[in-house]
Amino acid sequence: MDTRPCLADIQAAHARIAPFVHRTPVFTSRSIDELAGGELYFKCENLQRGGAFKIRGAMNAVLSLSPEEAAHGVVTHSSGNHAAALALAAQSKGIVAHIVVPENAPAVKLAAVKAYGGRITTCAPTMAAREEMAARIVADTGATLVHPYNDYRIIAGQGTVALELMEQVEGLDMVLAPVSGGGLLSGTAIAAKGIRPQVQVIGCEPSNADDAYRSLRAGRIVTNDHPVTIADGLRANLGDKTFPIIRELVDEIVLVKEEEIVHAMRLLFERVKLVVEPSGAVGLAAALCGRLNVQGKRVGIILSGGNVDMSAFFDSLLLASGPRE
Amino acid sequence: MDTRPCLADIQAAHARIAPFVHRTPVFTSRSIDELAGGELYFKCENLQRGGAFKIRGAMNAVLSLSPEEAAHGVVTHSSGNHAAALALAAQSKGIVAHIVVPENAPAVKLAAVKAYGGRITTCAPTMAAREEMAARIVADTGATLVHPYNDYRIIAGQGTVALELMEQVEGLDMVLAPVSGGGLLSGTAIAAKGIRPQVQVIGCEPSNADDAYRSLRAGRIVTNDHPVTIADGLRANLGDKTFPIIRELVDEIVLVKEEEIVHAMRLLFERVKLVVEPSGAVGLAAALCGRLNVQGKRVGIILSGGNVDMSAFFDSLLLASGPRE
Repeated sequence: MDTRPCLADIQAAHARIAPFVHRTPVFTSRSIDELAGGELYFKCENLQRGGAFKIRGAMNAVLSLSPEEAAHGVVTHSSGNHAAALALAAQSKGIVAHIVVPENAPAVKLAAVKAYGGRITTCAPTMAAREEMAARIVADTGATLVHPYNDYRIIAGQGTVALELMEQVEGLDMVLAPVSGGGLLSGTAIAAKGIRPQVQVIGCEPSNADDAYRSLRAGRIVTNDHPVTIADGLRANLGDKTFPIIRELVDEIVLVKEEEIVHAMRLLFERVKLVVEPSGAVGLAAALCGRLNVQGKRVGIILSGGNVDMSAFFDSLLLASGPRE
Repeated sequence: MDTRPCLADIQAAHARIAPFVHRTPVFTSRSIDELAGGELYFKCENLQRGGAFKIRGAMNAVLSLSPEEAAHGVVTHSSGNHAAALALAAQSKGIVAHIVVPENAPAVKLAAVKAYGGRITTCAPTMAAREEMAARIVADTGATLVHPYNDYRIIAGQGTVALELMEQVEGLDMVLAPVSGGGLLSGTAIAAKGIRPQVQVIGCEPSNADDAYRSLRAGRIVTNDHPVTIADGLRANLGDKTFPIIRELVDEIVLVKEEEIVHAMRLLFERVKLVVEPSGAVGLAAALCGRLNVQGKRVGIILSGGNVDMSAFFDSLLLASGPRE
């Protein structure tokens, strides 16, 4: 796919990936609606296979390969949810996924990739080393590089979240999606505005990793300099394929503070009983922060993932329960 | 309702309460099925109104009142999920709920009761003081006492969980429910066996609060002596209305250890992305403990509630995110 996807491409991607992904449910909460003053519809990609929306793009990329390409497998050097998603997508199709990870990657992330049958190659913990290793694997094996967001097949796949959401909830005034590299947000904008041109599409971004916000102001891609945010999935910068789509179709980027992200995440745990990772809670954080007018509106919010490390919480529970035995 | 409920009573209760409660979804997890060696179907009462199944019984009790009785309201001296559920049920019907709580009750529980419009009366933290205060409110106001479990209206209401589950999943071999006072377990047994006589109904109980297990062995109600378990909703003893039903219809009580409860809870958070309280995780703990044969079976598991205090977890997240601002 060499040209920017349109609604029809996202619909085609949806038909392609449907047998391999969940049509995730939409949740609501009366008490959070009261807090927000609007009707919020949570699209639960935390309940997606692999615990995040990433499987949609990865699956679309894998299924878009020619038989010849597929025979040589795929490779990525992303860490995080995309690596696990690509491994899972490749496994679902029965092809090989090479995953390049820095040698200091957390064991829990390696475990997910391994569980999905990904072939792990470690390298030095620099972007240059990662890219070099991925290029070497491409040269050695003929595998296809699948970028986590700056790829039209990925954008089309991620757009299927909003495609489903617009079908599941009629008459949305607004759709809120997190923005990191922009794969989800650009796909969301194409799908949502393609179906309902008057819908507002809002990108939600941590103040501490505000490259998309600054890029739209500057009219060019600007980057984060060592972003430090609890929303660890939102530290990437826009790419040359995602930026133009976002610039054209997204109405606004709303910045949210760290404590607003934690508060939103807590509400989702306590009121909706859903496990959502910090990156997945920025949409609700934006709806509640007071800097976006959601009063009386029907607002779709993409909860992008639920992969949060809760080891400390459960260790403390276990410790507390220990002496009682 | 003066006689033990049968399936038809539970069906009638379901029709009565349906406009006021959620038909909760059933979730599955491939990875947990692999761990268990069977097909597990999670009935998500953590997603119920008020965060637990308790609203079903409370709503049925409130809706079963005569207009004369309803005009005088309801009263309970339970702490925990039943108190909040009765307040919510009374609010839904537009009547008064008097909730007697010990003066040392946690603020978070009082907050839930207040949020649902319950009228709180505090008393000394003894069972005698609670019962005396409730009796005084009955005498003063004419309110109807609604016991948390030893009440046929409550049992019929709680039985609607299994009624829905049996409709949602065909051909279940086994249904697992937590047991505390026995309202949920007795209602589950009547509903499940009424619909499908060959289904096994298993009560799941913490080893540290094993009164139901011991009661079935002894053939009479025996009680816990200061039970200490992380499953704080499962410390009550069986009542004279719940015990005979459980004795007749329940196939087995499986005891689970504290660390098995925490492990099951963690799997539900991490793999299913659901917030489930310790008491709600004992069913999965039983399915995974190796002391119950679920191999190749279709097993319904009632996740009874999701009201877990996660303050410490979110406080630590907030603390970690603070310096980044």
